[in-house]
Amino acid sequence: MPTTNASAAARIDLRSDTVTRPTPEMRRAMADAEVGDDVLDGDPTVQRLEARVAELLGKERAYFFPSGTMANQAAVWLLARRGTEVLLDAESHLIQWEHAGLAALAGVQIRAVPAGAGRRVMDAASLAATIRPPSLHAPKASLVCFENTHNGAGGVVTSAADLLAMAEVARAHGLPVHMDGARLWNAAVATGTPISHFADCADTVMVSFSKGLGAPVGAVLAGSSDALADAWVVRKRMGGGMRQSGILAAGALHGLEHQWPRLADDHARTRALADAIDGVGGARVVPPDTNILMVDLPHPVVPAVVARAAAQGVLLSPWTTTRLRAVTHRDVDDAMVHRAGEVIVAALEAELHAAASA
Amino acid sequence: MPTTNASAAARIDLRSDTVTRPTPEMRRAMADAEVGDDVLDGDPTVQRLEARVAELLGKERAYFFPSGTMANQAAVWLLARRGTEVLLDAESHLIQWEHAGLAALAGVQIRAVPAGAGRRVMDAASLAATIRPPSLHAPKASLVCFENTHNGAGGVVTSAADLLAMAEVARAHGLPVHMDGARLWNAAVATGTPISHFADCADTVMVSFSKGLGAPVGAVLAGSSDALADAWVVRKRMGGGMRQSGILAAGALHGLEHQWPRLADDHARTRALADAIDGVGGARVVPPDTNILMVDLPHPVVPAVVARAAAQGVLLSPWTTTRLRAVTHRDVDDAMVHRAGEVIVAALEAELHAAASA
Amino acid sequence: MPTTNASAAARIDLRSDTVTRPTPEMRRAMADAEVGDDVLDGDPTVQRLEARVAELLGKERAYFFPSGTMANQAAVWLLARRGTEVLLDAESHLIQWEHAGLAALAGVQIRAVPAGAGRRVMDAASLAATIRPPSLHAPKASLVCFENTHNGAGGVVTSAADLLAMAEVARAHGLPVHMDGARLWNAAVATGTPISHFADCADTVMVSFSKGLGAPVGAVLAGSSDALADAWVVRKRMGGGMRQSGILAAGALHGLEHQWPRLADDHARTRALADAIDGVGGARVVPPDTNILMVDLPHPVVPAVVARAAAQGVLLSPWTTTRLRAVTHRDVDDAMVHRAGEVIVAALEAELHAAASA
Amino acid sequence: MPTTNASAAARIDLRSDTVTRPTPEMRRAMADAEVGDDVLDGDPTVQRLEARVAELLGKERAYFFPSGTMANQAAVWLLARRGTEVLLDAESHLIQWEHAGLAALAGVQIRAVPAGAGRRVMDAASLAATIRPPSLHAPKASLVCFENTHNGAGGVVTSAADLLAMAEVARAHGLPVHMDGARLWNAAVATGTPISHFADCADTVMVSFSKGLGAPVGAVLAGSSDALADAWVVRKRMGGGMRQSGILAAGALHGLEHQWPRLADDHARTRALADAIDGVGGARVVPPDTNILMVDLPHPVVPAVVARAAAQGVLLSPWTTTRLRAVTHRDVDDAMVHRAGEVIVAALEAELHAAASA
Repeated sequence: MPTTNASAAARIDLRSDTVTRPTPEMRRAMADAEVGDDVLDGDPTVQRLEARVAELLGKERAYFFPSGTMANQAAVWLLARRGTEVLLDAESHLIQWEHAGLAALAGVQIRAVPAGAGRRVMDAASLAATIRPPSLHAPKASLVCFENTHNGAGGVVTSAADLLAMAEVARAHGLPVHMDGARLWNAAVATGTPISHFADCADTVMVSFSKGLGAPVGAVLAGSSDALADAWVVRKRMGGGMRQSGILAAGALHGLEHQWPRLADDHARTRALADAIDGVGGARVVPPDTNILMVDLPHPVVPAVVARAAAQGVLLSPWTTTRLRAVTHRDVDDAMVHRAGEVIVAALEAELHAAASA
Repeated sequence: MPTTNASAAARIDLRSDTVTRPTPEMRRAMADAEVGDDVLDGDPTVQRLEARVAELLGKERAYFFPSGTMANQAAVWLLARRGTEVLLDAESHLIQWEHAGLAALAGVQIRAVPAGAGRRVMDAASLAATIRPPSLHAPKASLVCFENTHNGAGGVVTSAADLLAMAEVARAHGLPVHMDGARLWNAAVATGTPISHFADCADTVMVSFSKGLGAPVGAVLAGSSDALADAWVVRKRMGGGMRQSGILAAGALHGLEHQWPRLADDHARTRALADAIDGVGGARVVPPDTNILMVDLPHPVVPAVVARAAAQGVLLSPWTTTRLRAVTHRDVDDAMVHRAGEVIVAALEAELHAAASA
Repeated sequence: MPTTNASAAARIDLRSDTVTRPTPEMRRAMADAEVGDDVLDGDPTVQRLEARVAELLGKERAYFFPSGTMANQAAVWLLARRGTEVLLDAESHLIQWEHAGLAALAGVQIRAVPAGAGRRVMDAASLAATIRPPSLHAPKASLVCFENTHNGAGGVVTSAADLLAMAEVARAHGLPVHMDGARLWNAAVATGTPISHFADCADTVMVSFSKGLGAPVGAVLAGSSDALADAWVVRKRMGGGMRQSGILAAGALHGLEHQWPRLADDHARTRALADAIDGVGGARVVPPDTNILMVDLPHPVVPAVVARAAAQGVLLSPWTTTRLRAVTHRDVDDAMVHRAGEVIVAALEAELHAAASA
Repeated sequence: MPTTNASAAARIDLRSDTVTRPTPEMRRAMADAEVGDDVLDGDPTVQRLEARVAELLGKERAYFFPSGTMANQAAVWLLARRGTEVLLDAESHLIQWEHAGLAALAGVQIRAVPAGAGRRVMDAASLAATIRPPSLHAPKASLVCFENTHNGAGGVVTSAADLLAMAEVARAHGLPVHMDGARLWNAAVATGTPISHFADCADTVMVSFSKGLGAPVGAVLAGSSDALADAWVVRKRMGGGMRQSGILAAGALHGLEHQWPRLADDHARTRALADAIDGVGGARVVPPDTNILMVDLPHPVVPAVVARAAAQGVLLSPWTTTRLRAVTHRDVDDAMVHRAGEVIVAALEAELHAAASA
């Protein structure tokens, strides 16, 4: 087991929590996994993972997928009707980062829900206001999607109560709900709420294992038996049927057991980083709920700041020209985050001072 | 030729200019049309219409369609790539009134362009700001659509110069342009600009004959030979291949010759109606460029106003709960518009007074 | 009403019954039609046609479409599930002449049913043998389509009893049925069976007015209220919503009343033509059930035969290199068919003799 | 490393070569894999696999996919045009086992090519005869797909020369070619032909690692830079973007190095099994080219034979009611194949004797 993640030591990678690499223990669990042919009569480790996630989320069934994107797209295929609209937050992963799969695969049009008043993400009121009144001429809606935590808004947690309020609106209009819960693990840890309380709002929920939980590959779609009646077929058609995928499921199970509780450390480190950065040169952090930090700059110097930090070994995501994103995860510890803060502060000071005096 | 449009006399229908019925002269022209099998070796009257529209719009080719919606959808199918985004005004007919055909048929995701600063429709600056920077992760764009005049904004004319400025932005990003010019006839009349100047901005242009031109059925899609190379096949696949459709084309040709110049009267009547209504009970008209009038009310009493007017024989469109729409056309004359103004004023006074004192 | 169909006198067009042009009486009926806005609150003549067809076919509802292709595609959209298979005769119009709309629009895969033993079209046994046994791995079926009369097989009539036997098979597998009955009028006339008996086999039935009934444009899709619950929306999305389409519906109603009974003449003329041709130079006719004649040649000289006949003013369809098609219709009378027979016989003799001696 | 495949000892699983489980050595290679984020800036082991396969197949680029089905569907998306036809062998995996993805995802209609005269799979002559002559009315073709070895035909090898002859036909009609080479490894071993000679026929080639090569998960799509220009985006949209997928790629690389040469043993064992079975009770084997054996029975007793063998621990695939399939692979050795032969012979004798005397 030679991979010590040593090559990562040289740099501090805050671009995403997807960069986490499996630990030696996780690699061992994967290597030892009991496997079968999951497209034929099932892989026992995959079945164990599916059962565990279904139980955690309080759902009847669950299916393992090679990616959260595929699980999201499968859910939309299963729940929405082609030629209708899907209501979802304007900054959703489904709109921004899935290469128009909503239209290209499921054939549904997006109807973007704005953030609620005084909020960073959609809420029951903004959802209700966006649902069209019945009309023979306007597109009908057939699905509502939530994202929690919300990546594009900065790891924002929507509380279980707020989710249920939105679900009430959806159900009042006869609309099913899918939740992109790629980082739902973080929402549960950040709030101390049982994860099933969040899942209660939705007919189907996607959770990912390749973010904070540190597994190399995989996501699960859980839901009611009705919602998922055709899930196996839809997954196969999209090319998500894998053979001895217990290897991957073993990593997910290991992450679930050993990494999930650890997410609180990530959240604390993100807050520390926020504190270090906020106000520097006029930069303003979005107060972080979880492990994602968004920093808004008063000048469009994000590319320069990102380049300057990278030269010091600190990798950041340019979100827009005035917003950068930093994400903590298992492969960055307190010292690395402290060091990253120093590098970012220096970069902000240099670039924002230059921009202000230009 | 018994149909004297007499049954319309009882009511003043301002819901849309699509309600216009063919005049006795147009009916005669249709009845006398020379016809052939347009799916086999061509219908001579259809070919005459296609040639005439291509010439007017300065395009190489043109195809007759059973509706503007089909011509729009065919254009998107021809110009856009599945799994990409189409940029278009947030209130476009293509988004609002075509039952999600963009996603369901062409498989493209919408990327809504907001109105320009101080404008009622998208402009070059708001378009440029909405085009995503290149990214491997974000959806690519493959098409820009304009709508002129813009129905949802209140018959707004975008000038040929402004269209060309937007087209510049599109071309700088390698994006083709389709224009939904269902009411482009009105834009040309309202501005005195040759209609081909408007069409210059776009690779394909749709014009409709069943609105102000008063023909019963039909639209034409005109464009370059390249853009329309596969148009015949796309139209056939969607079910737009019609046999002796010269009957319909004859109506379109008649409208082109005899009704197009008349649109100036519609515009004058809409202004008269606007003057009569503006300010009543706090209602504010959107100053009309053409034949469509939008009226914004300070209270959500549109349904009641519409019902009250209908009881007096004046039919209006409820656009939202605080906005109503009135459209003039060939089948309403000065006296009818005057009468409609009186009825609407009375309805507004009654309902807005009640709402204000509630 | 100047169009006397005189220009057709020069040639005898047997390429298809779609070439029929409206008679002066039909043109007058169209010119006099009462109309309304069929996308807004309905066109009275369209409604009259829809009611009449629904009654004739014994169905609850009916919708007017601009073409049979669109009505077919709408039916498949309504009845089939994307990502499944549609079972239909291998030579169906839906497979051969609709530009892959089954896949491109409805997203369904074809599963071709071979002709029954000793038959020219699919039957209950060949349908049953083509339905896949249940499997998690193989595509599921979701629809069966019939075509009657069957164009590609040579205007073949499938009897009402045989249709019901196939419908039994479909229903035993939980599959709905659509019938492409573009020329169902001919089947009813040829057999003396009430047209509703044929329609009984299917959830939805398409009938066309632009073939033997001689109307310029239009088809109707009739079916149960359940099957057609979303038909209005689907038609609008595909661009089939037309405004004062009563003009077209009036032609259809006129054809229904005045041309339908006349189809027996077409059938008799096709038999006469078959008798004239059969055996010439080794050519073999497919004994015609209705108005479509298929002639199989012992050598691949169809292009030459078609060209030779065209030079004499007789237009035929090259079906394959060894099969040609001739279709009778309202615009060819006994004398024209007699003359066509002479021309075809001469062409066959010349070309087949040359080929045999080559 | 506890998994000794011991649990497999109890049964002899000949259902498919997909049931192979990773060896201890392969598991170790996977556990030790160097990894990165393949959706962000690349995984080094995935890149190594992609480069290796591109080199082997003589192609410019290659992409790792979670399954052969997804790689197939991505290739069709990339090469075919929506609303056209794809020509491919009637028994192709793409038609039979991918849940109508051709229609549902790529929007293309199938046009099945029959087996060549005296052959078990399509050849240049049957392909050429199936390509439609140009017509404005008939669906156009946009792609030809080959499958080699051909699973449904019984692991049949099409020689490199025959593939090139088919490719000539395709290119003469301007059609690109994709080859489903899930088991192309077997074709190369069986014929001694360099694998790149097979790949020369196609613009894109899919190869799988989870069949005879014994890796748990994964396939690669290789092709020209032009053909694969958009492959990264298409893969991401379908949900095939995976993070630390080097874990899986390491298994594929291990299989490539250590299992590929071993396939000759599988082929020998399949021949031995064929010899043991052929003629028993009238059963006829399809002479096996590679590791797949099809056995045709004179009576529809496949379900009973499969059940009887299963009761003795030998698992077979019921292909139809008269054809069963047996597949050899790494996890069955000579003794197991010998034992399987005895069990199958006994089952055939019992069931076929009973059927014959019934």
